[in-house]
Amino acid sequence: MHQSPDDLDRTDPEGAIAAAAKRCSNWGRWGADDVLGTMNFLDDAKRVEGAALVRRGASFSLSQSFDTDGPQKGWRRRTNPVHTMTDTGTDAERGVQGFPHGIGGADDVIAMPLQCSTQWDGLGHIFDHGFAWNGRRAGDVVTSLGDSVTGIETVASLIAGRGVLLDVGRAVGTDGELPDGFAITHQHLEATIAAQGESSRVGRGDLVVVRTGRLTRARRDIAEGRGWGDYAGGDAPGLSFTTAGWLHGTEIAGIATDTWGFEVRPNEFDVAFQPLHQVAIPNIGLFIGEMWDLDALAADCAEDGRYDFWLTAAPLPVTGAVGSPVNPIAVK
Amino acid sequence: MHQSPDDLDRTDPEGAIAAAAKRCSNWGRWGADDVLGTMNFLDDAKRVEGAALVRRGASFSLSQSFDTDGPQKGWRRRTNPVHTMTDTGTDAERGVQGFPHGIGGADDVIAMPLQCSTQWDGLGHIFDHGFAWNGRRAGDVVTSLGDSVTGIETVASLIAGRGVLLDVGRAVGTDGELPDGFAITHQHLEATIAAQGESSRVGRGDLVVVRTGRLTRARRDIAEGRGWGDYAGGDAPGLSFTTAGWLHGTEIAGIATDTWGFEVRPNEFDVAFQPLHQVAIPNIGLFIGEMWDLDALAADCAEDGRYDFWLTAAPLPVTGAVGSPVNPIAVK
Amino acid sequence: MHQSPDDLDRTDPEGAIAAAAKRCSNWGRWGADDVLGTMNFLDDAKRVEGAALVRRGASFSLSQSFDTDGPQKGWRRRTNPVHTMTDTGTDAERGVQGFPHGIGGADDVIAMPLQCSTQWDGLGHIFDHGFAWNGRRAGDVVTSLGDSVTGIETVASLIAGRGVLLDVGRAVGTDGELPDGFAITHQHLEATIAAQGESSRVGRGDLVVVRTGRLTRARRDIAEGRGWGDYAGGDAPGLSFTTAGWLHGTEIAGIATDTWGFEVRPNEFDVAFQPLHQVAIPNIGLFIGEMWDLDALAADCAEDGRYDFWLTAAPLPVTGAVGSPVNPIAVK
Amino acid sequence: MHQSPDDLDRTDPEGAIAAAAKRCSNWGRWGADDVLGTMNFLDDAKRVEGAALVRRGASFSLSQSFDTDGPQKGWRRRTNPVHTMTDTGTDAERGVQGFPHGIGGADDVIAMPLQCSTQWDGLGHIFDHGFAWNGRRAGDVVTSLGDSVTGIETVASLIAGRGVLLDVGRAVGTDGELPDGFAITHQHLEATIAAQGESSRVGRGDLVVVRTGRLTRARRDIAEGRGWGDYAGGDAPGLSFTTAGWLHGTEIAGIATDTWGFEVRPNEFDVAFQPLHQVAIPNIGLFIGEMWDLDALAADCAEDGRYDFWLTAAPLPVTGAVGSPVNPIAVK
Repeated sequence: MHQSPDDLDRTDPEGAIAAAAKRCSNWGRWGADDVLGTMNFLDDAKRVEGAALVRRGASFSLSQSFDTDGPQKGWRRRTNPVHTMTDTGTDAERGVQGFPHGIGGADDVIAMPLQCSTQWDGLGHIFDHGFAWNGRRAGDVVTSLGDSVTGIETVASLIAGRGVLLDVGRAVGTDGELPDGFAITHQHLEATIAAQGESSRVGRGDLVVVRTGRLTRARRDIAEGRGWGDYAGGDAPGLSFTTAGWLHGTEIAGIATDTWGFEVRPNEFDVAFQPLHQVAIPNIGLFIGEMWDLDALAADCAEDGRYDFWLTAAPLPVTGAVGSPVNPIAVK
Repeated sequence: MHQSPDDLDRTDPEGAIAAAAKRCSNWGRWGADDVLGTMNFLDDAKRVEGAALVRRGASFSLSQSFDTDGPQKGWRRRTNPVHTMTDTGTDAERGVQGFPHGIGGADDVIAMPLQCSTQWDGLGHIFDHGFAWNGRRAGDVVTSLGDSVTGIETVASLIAGRGVLLDVGRAVGTDGELPDGFAITHQHLEATIAAQGESSRVGRGDLVVVRTGRLTRARRDIAEGRGWGDYAGGDAPGLSFTTAGWLHGTEIAGIATDTWGFEVRPNEFDVAFQPLHQVAIPNIGLFIGEMWDLDALAADCAEDGRYDFWLTAAPLPVTGAVGSPVNPIAVK
Repeated sequence: MHQSPDDLDRTDPEGAIAAAAKRCSNWGRWGADDVLGTMNFLDDAKRVEGAALVRRGASFSLSQSFDTDGPQKGWRRRTNPVHTMTDTGTDAERGVQGFPHGIGGADDVIAMPLQCSTQWDGLGHIFDHGFAWNGRRAGDVVTSLGDSVTGIETVASLIAGRGVLLDVGRAVGTDGELPDGFAITHQHLEATIAAQGESSRVGRGDLVVVRTGRLTRARRDIAEGRGWGDYAGGDAPGLSFTTAGWLHGTEIAGIATDTWGFEVRPNEFDVAFQPLHQVAIPNIGLFIGEMWDLDALAADCAEDGRYDFWLTAAPLPVTGAVGSPVNPIAVK
Repeated sequence: MHQSPDDLDRTDPEGAIAAAAKRCSNWGRWGADDVLGTMNFLDDAKRVEGAALVRRGASFSLSQSFDTDGPQKGWRRRTNPVHTMTDTGTDAERGVQGFPHGIGGADDVIAMPLQCSTQWDGLGHIFDHGFAWNGRRAGDVVTSLGDSVTGIETVASLIAGRGVLLDVGRAVGTDGELPDGFAITHQHLEATIAAQGESSRVGRGDLVVVRTGRLTRARRDIAEGRGWGDYAGGDAPGLSFTTAGWLHGTEIAGIATDTWGFEVRPNEFDVAFQPLHQVAIPNIGLFIGEMWDLDALAADCAEDGRYDFWLTAAPLPVTGAVGSPVNPIAVK
């Protein structure tokens, strides 16, 4: 399938963004005090529906590693995790720890950007003209102390429900992968759903994961000695700006990709920076996941033909965080 | 109920630990290469059983916060998380970020011990006389580079299954709480199961969470201005050393408490340091969780009389980590 | 000597601060582009004068330790340094490092607030009504990216010159120490100079270090088991708000104390937060040092009667930092 | 001048290292308890001699920057510093800080390897066959808790004295620079001294700084868009293994270069890792500095023909550190 044309006016990014933001705004939809955005769609009934999808008990981690060998190269000052030991087995074996009766221990610490690997963007991660989710002024929400309103801890217990894989790489791409710069439109998403069948229908409260194959390619590059390249911060396939309406209209609770930036890179305007984020996070109130590892799950779905599953993607409740590392667990 | 006497020989800790370690050892049970320990018990069938426990779709986070106001006071050089922002809403609103078309962003980093708040102990966390899980030499497992054998990433996809709450605080304690130094014996555990009823039976592959009420008390102390006190590192109720056999014999996959140290503090020998850990982690190969927040879940269980649930407690896959922060999600 | 009365109007802090700021302002004194403030006073001639003070070659570090046992308790989210090893001697001795021919290594990392121990405040550390040094808007100077104008690196090569110790604790206090809340006025400073003699005269370009004895007391508290107490963030002796004129008029290049906060605590207004900082840093452009260890130097000065010396207090040139750890070296 | 031949037996690195270690050993020279190594050579008389070199009062920082744009690329898990703000001017200007009377503040934290930029190696940094400086077992010196014997804090007050620049790049190189792989022999060092004249004689207690021009080249690469390349961890000019005797015999207190690794890279044996370190640190007890910025000082020395100066290179006294960032200050 070739990339579909769309009616995106590429000459006026400012206007296009403003129009989409207005069209898709959920400001006020859940009251002036709302801090949950689209996570309001994920209710108990949806969880009951999701749990019923566990048939074989097979579980999949959708998380990449967190370590010094990750893809970060300093973009937006994001580094890879620095993991160090405060006690080790060598110390224990050497007998220098001073504990009685032969017990020894190892302990460790980590320093890392909260969005260095598999992650959720919180609602305080992106602003539109100085405004955050639900119309609050950005400076009233996120200061140097963190996000005092929509910190990721507000959804700590909520993100468990029905997950749906849209394997656009397999359905639309070549050899299961989309090339950098490929803009996934709502037509591609719908075509993928159609190709995959009923289990991949998408609706209110669902957690959608979109596989582009970009991580598959990065892994191949690493295996063949070329390293991560620009996996984190560079060009990539991803959601088209034109999917804003689909993201809004489907009333999904959250969506994640296997790329660093969710939306297509380069962006679809000549001068732009993540315009779909600008619509989706502060205006729709949508939860976006990035750098998820969908390959093992996708292989399983391709094999059994079932694309929905129980998904628990619990953010680490770092108080006031605008994003969070996450180890999403899918169970089929 | 008063604390039961037991046949613990308090005059010979070294001998008691060695005897329990020998009696409960699972070394070799799953082959010489095993890195999963008791997580081997948590199989797909158990997950199917666990998912079937979702009835209402009510979800509970069993995680405490991760922030600077946590309980750590430097014990074992454990500090509270330091969360800082690399971009803020005030910067965005002030227009200093330099992005086009009105988009602004916030980003953040964290530095923290992996066991500073709600956590899993990995199998490389504790050694017995210089030996780690499955009989490996400690120095062959955990060096300054981390745990190269049993790093927490080895169980990244596995820890989702049937959870069981044993609310010993409610069943055995006073006003729902046990005092510091209260050693929970297997009799207390069995009495709790008996009091709670059939839904709290414990067996192979289960994930058991034991509420002592210690966190409830800490929260009351904080609310009344006394602060955390010694919640992290001080005295506490907890599992008796004598439960080693129960932990081994039940063939549970993991167990967690609402205290910092899992086992009773002070320990039951005059000179000792976490002797139950010394048996449980390197010898049984048991996964232990600490500082879990069980209060909301416990209140719900007390109300509906159902003590088992679907539990996903996915560690963050920090490569080579000997422990991991976790946001466990229980769904009933 | 009793604490002298002064003409401070304690009923109008806002007015008193504004008046002092106006009276002592150095804005524009060195041009609109200036980033050095009072460090302009420390010129090459002053360095020649300072170097001539080296007579015996005795050197003194004026730095406290940087480690986990420091005084920080979380005030303004300041923690003690977290120092961890990425390689150790135990690893090397165990032979797990993989280097050839018997070489082994140890390496380490640190995470710490830049002002957790002995430090310089940079000119971007304090603002007055939204304005930074030399009249710049605070948001034009210090964003989440750091201080893009007056970062501590701008004075990286400059802070070496004539140091003068004013041992107010010895000259004015009891048993060499001033009590908490003792406000050191310009009369106390002049009395100290008079008592110490000619070598302690203070003038343009000098680096003045003021000993209150507060650290001596903290050390005694630690030795006697009471710990740091509120050394970092609590009550302390220190400079009176009324010394603003003296700080400005003497044309000193920098000044440091052995306390966490430089000025007297509690502050001299009922409701206030570091009003002397508000005048000194953004308006005078003065470099302030805190938590310096002056005890060994002070004992030597008391013995030989010479209170001036060659002082090198080179900040670590962390780009964009608003403060810096420092190991000041005095040589007599 | 062409690179001189030497009598290095390249076929037997193990033997060559052992022979040099034995020949140059200072173990026991200052008693069994010694923790200062060659810093014992830097006495008060040397400081008096050094201070007399201050003639014009011109000061030079020999430190590179500490920031995210540094040369580190992860070698030995060394990263560039991560500097974040805990309060900013934008927050202050926005009025969200909550302080009275218009005061605002900025604060910051840093996380970094202690040897990521301009640094001193401590005596616990390198081991020889499991032994540290003065014959101690490595595991008795440096555990996960740090260096409990020769931590960098032991020399906190000492490193100030006579500095000598040996600008080998200018004296021996082409256009002031040596190429990667150029091994500086003692003949090159002596030729440089001869070329520079009497002010560059080297002897007991001196602090020697050796300029290769490698940093000059890196700066040019950055300016021309090629980035740092392998400045940190790659090939470089540096001291030949054969200078071990010179380093030992001159009885210098310390020596630093403008390269990441001090000694020539690739090393002079086919299979080797920093063999000169293996001799110099644990056996000679020598303090080695790396990544110093000598360019401005070197230009000044070339102009006035004086190559010695007063040098203060005070390490940050991080307790138990095996290395330290440093901002060395030279004054002429």
